Amino acid sequence: MLYLVGLGLADETDITVKGLEIVKKAERVYLEAYTSILLVDTAKLEEFYGRPVIVADREMVESSSDEILHNADKVDVAFLVVGDPFGATTHTDLVLRARELGIEMRNIPNASIMSAIGCTGLQLYSFGQTVSMVFFTETWKPSSYYDRIKQNAEHGLHTLVLLDIKVKEQSLENMARGRKIYEPPRYMTVAQCAEQMLETEVERKEGICGPESLAIGAARVGAIDQQLVVGTLEELTKVDLGKPLHSLVLLGTKTHELERDYIRRFAVDTATFDNIWKKHYEAKS
Amino acid sequence: MLYLVGLGLADETDITVKGLEIVKKAERVYLEAYTSILLVDTAKLEEFYGRPVIVADREMVESSSDEILHNADKVDVAFLVVGDPFGATTHTDLVLRARELGIEMRNIPNASIMSAIGCTGLQLYSFGQTVSMVFFTETWKPSSYYDRIKQNAEHGLHTLVLLDIKVKEQSLENMARGRKIYEPPRYMTVAQCAEQMLETEVERKEGICGPESLAIGAARVGAIDQQLVVGTLEELTKVDLGKPLHSLVLLGTKTHELERDYIRRFAVDTATFDNIWKKHYEAKS
Repeated sequence: MLYLVGLGLADETDITVKGLEIVKKAERVYLEAYTSILLVDTAKLEEFYGRPVIVADREMVESSSDEILHNADKVDVAFLVVGDPFGATTHTDLVLRARELGIEMRNIPNASIMSAIGCTGLQLYSFGQTVSMVFFTETWKPSSYYDRIKQNAEHGLHTLVLLDIKVKEQSLENMARGRKIYEPPRYMTVAQCAEQMLETEVERKEGICGPESLAIGAARVGAIDQQLVVGTLEELTKVDLGKPLHSLVLLGTKTHELERDYIRRFAVDTATFDNIWKKHYEAKS
Repeated sequence: MLYLVGLGLADETDITVKGLEIVKKAERVYLEAYTSILLVDTAKLEEFYGRPVIVADREMVESSSDEILHNADKVDVAFLVVGDPFGATTHTDLVLRARELGIEMRNIPNASIMSAIGCTGLQLYSFGQTVSMVFFTETWKPSSYYDRIKQNAEHGLHTLVLLDIKVKEQSLENMARGRKIYEPPRYMTVAQCAEQMLETEVERKEGICGPESLAIGAARVGAIDQQLVVGTLEELTKVDLGKPLHSLVLLGTKTHELERDYIRRFAVDTATFDNIWKKHYEAKS
């Protein structure tokens, strides 16, 4: 049996009791370590589980899935995924391959940022499609996310923006020379995301994510040092929310006063918040 | 401290290790039992936690929140919510009240149907806003959900439809006579939901959820007897997915072939699926 086990968002104790039992009993345990990260390292997980964990990078999952699935028709293999196992598309591939090999699969759900973002106090019903934000480079500043935010905004919906992480990436030079030397991991911050959104707005000029758009920065959701901050994108370019992982929610205009009451206390500056809310958000509800 | 603890979706072992520790140590433990249900009863939870659990119905949470929060500035109170604590809006109210009373709050996220629905193999990025479907009556058949599905459909997005549950409801007669007699709980099935969607389509005629629209019925997500079935709404009116809870996803036309490969094996009838897919979904990707 192949078990896809969600690990939740913050630390080793966010696994479910059901998931932990499976991990303790499985023949082999893999940890998917490239679409997201926990806030603790693998050694901590191994200590908590009382057993070794094989770290599976993108290459392994995408090219060597048969190695992961080896024998899984006879023994139990646990494949651990940060968040919910089906949060990232990559893993449907693995399940499809398991099916071809006649291996049964069971899924152990857990918290995903896609729903845990409800901790902002914004109603999950009022979110449109989720988008991702990649690190811009000098020559590559993809703005397709802007179109999707625009679709959400047309109906007054909030947008969850998931921020890029770069784990085990090679520099172009190292890749060209075939050197398996990896860059240090990079995690996009709320400030960087806000900056890039303003950059796209300057280019596109459709009023989707300008300096007066309200957004919520969320850091380390579910952890004891979880942090929320509400401000205009302009204000958010200047906040430091500390360690990863960060996410951002761009507010839609179809807001509820309960949402306002909830988020107001996280405002960078309450006067600015009240002012902007009144100007752009309140009457649209 | 007020702890909002998510219980996940299926049974008592879906609580996280972190959540369980909190429940074991808290002074009082409440279970919110009206926006969703676990698939096991309260006695089972009490046995697993090794302690009593106070069932909190809607009336208690909405009118007697101070009773729940009593003393929580000094002792730990755990408020258990099926799924993720912030899945239902009701609980932001409780947190706002706690804030007024100067009580600190911590949130323990868990799986929510809003993200666990990824187990269908559909990409979470391709979902628009979530809608709810209430039980229609002879005289009340609200169709505002139809407008929201239409907004999603315009951009080819999938829609998660959450199905009504009626727990501890009084009949009009009993309510009028002030008799605290409650109707047996009712949980909407995938078949009933499909039926109502077709009914709305007959009335609205905008081609949003007609007999040839593809949808996925999901039952008991995360449980060992989780069940998925894919078919046209017409076909789904005839399926029996067994015990609650059920959910439905109406497919958008912006599909990916990985999604097709994944869901095809759950088709009520593969030939019909292939045919409808080709006709309405494939070329639109």
